[in-house]
Amino acid sequence: MKNRLSIVKIGGNIIENSQELSKFLRLFAKMDTPKILVHGGGKKANQLLEKMGIPPKMVNGRRITDKATLDVVVMTYAGLTNTNIVAQLQALGCNALGLSGADANSIKAHKRPVKDIDYGFAGDVDKVDGKKIGSLLDIGFVPVFCALTHDGNGQLLNTNADTIAAELAGQLSTQYETLLYYCFEKNGVLESISDESSVIDQIDTDAYAILLKKGIINDGMLPKIKNCFTALEKGAREVRIGNTNLFQNENTNYTTLVL
Amino acid sequence: MKNRLSIVKIGGNIIENSQELSKFLRLFAKMDTPKILVHGGGKKANQLLEKMGIPPKMVNGRRITDKATLDVVVMTYAGLTNTNIVAQLQALGCNALGLSGADANSIKAHKRPVKDIDYGFAGDVDKVDGKKIGSLLDIGFVPVFCALTHDGNGQLLNTNADTIAAELAGQLSTQYETLLYYCFEKNGVLESISDESSVIDQIDTDAYAILLKKGIINDGMLPKIKNCFTALEKGAREVRIGNTNLFQNENTNYTTLVL
Repeated sequence: MKNRLSIVKIGGNIIENSQELSKFLRLFAKMDTPKILVHGGGKKANQLLEKMGIPPKMVNGRRITDKATLDVVVMTYAGLTNTNIVAQLQALGCNALGLSGADANSIKAHKRPVKDIDYGFAGDVDKVDGKKIGSLLDIGFVPVFCALTHDGNGQLLNTNADTIAAELAGQLSTQYETLLYYCFEKNGVLESISDESSVIDQIDTDAYAILLKKGIINDGMLPKIKNCFTALEKGAREVRIGNTNLFQNENTNYTTLVL
Repeated sequence: MKNRLSIVKIGGNIIENSQELSKFLRLFAKMDTPKILVHGGGKKANQLLEKMGIPPKMVNGRRITDKATLDVVVMTYAGLTNTNIVAQLQALGCNALGLSGADANSIKAHKRPVKDIDYGFAGDVDKVDGKKIGSLLDIGFVPVFCALTHDGNGQLLNTNADTIAAELAGQLSTQYETLLYYCFEKNGVLESISDESSVIDQIDTDAYAILLKKGIINDGMLPKIKNCFTALEKGAREVRIGNTNLFQNENTNYTTLVL
């Protein structure tokens, strides 16, 4: 029987709110090991770009990562956010180890090919090294991933944190019974975006098609749910979307994704 | 018999020169394992502080790390510099793993007590966790430390990279036969600062006292040599100061420190 591994991804809105982040980290620190945390970037990068006089470049809600922007993204994601989260987890007795995809060669990616849009130094994941990550889990470390990968030729790449979480869950499912939790500021996928009580209990691929058709799943949720299905297809045992109470036993208010 | 462990520290002037850094990293990647890299910060933090309109605060050549400065130091040391060095080493086939002292709870420190000067979030090292670092070395990782520690209560602290290298060498000498190399822009400790050929072959504590008296060891070199003696006192097998060719077999031009 495989060991159970929990992978938790937290979004930018949680990271930006220091009280919410503290609350989340206390819950995460109490979770059974093995476990992995993946965090997004939040608005810190944009704030720093602004302070430095570099206008953030976005197309269809996606960041265009030119060289100057990449440097700022690396500074905030791998520097400020990751290192502070690790220090806070250590204070809670959780043996955290901060990682980008370059560390331990854990996540290799390639620069997204230019079609209509040149996303710059944005990376699409090629390979998660489950063996190396497993070796860190085996000796009791709790990997904390930021949303950066590398191309194996020395180039760092900005990579969506939801995708990193899904790719980790997919690859590590060969070694573990993997549970994937997407924590964000809502209680789950909502029927009505303004009604926090309208959480959809379960979404399978058929329901997904219907929700898409009805326009209930919007731009921000679309790639997240695609990532959920990717993880499930690659063998993740369970995938949930919800708030920071998502992985508490007493919580029953979240969305479960199933194939 | 203990295994041999090399600990190499590189200074800011190497980091700032991308050609020098590449050359150094190629040499470092070829070194036998186990090995550890420790890097300083360089001027990137000051440049970023300037861009953000935060004046760098220095007293007697030492940085005063207020909260805004600490954030910038964390962004540049743990973010930009560390993550890019790791990506470059991975491209050279060296299985690098970037660490601050918070990662794996590897280096705990306390905020420097206020006497005449309040250094802010500057940390003096209390404890290196040789067991945790050893567990990373055992499974083939090459730790790359930036100049940051933590206090165990969630606070990151700016810590001198020379000191971190010396403390690592000292603690790890209980497990390994430890060689400590301080690489910087000069060929070694020089009799005459303007004459690169005036490298002093060997400095023991008696010679150190004489050099101090003569004023040959200046402000920048003083704490570095103190750190060398600390490492030796704590059991380091060999400590050398020199340029980036320091650990090459054919190189004989460097300063060796002995007790």
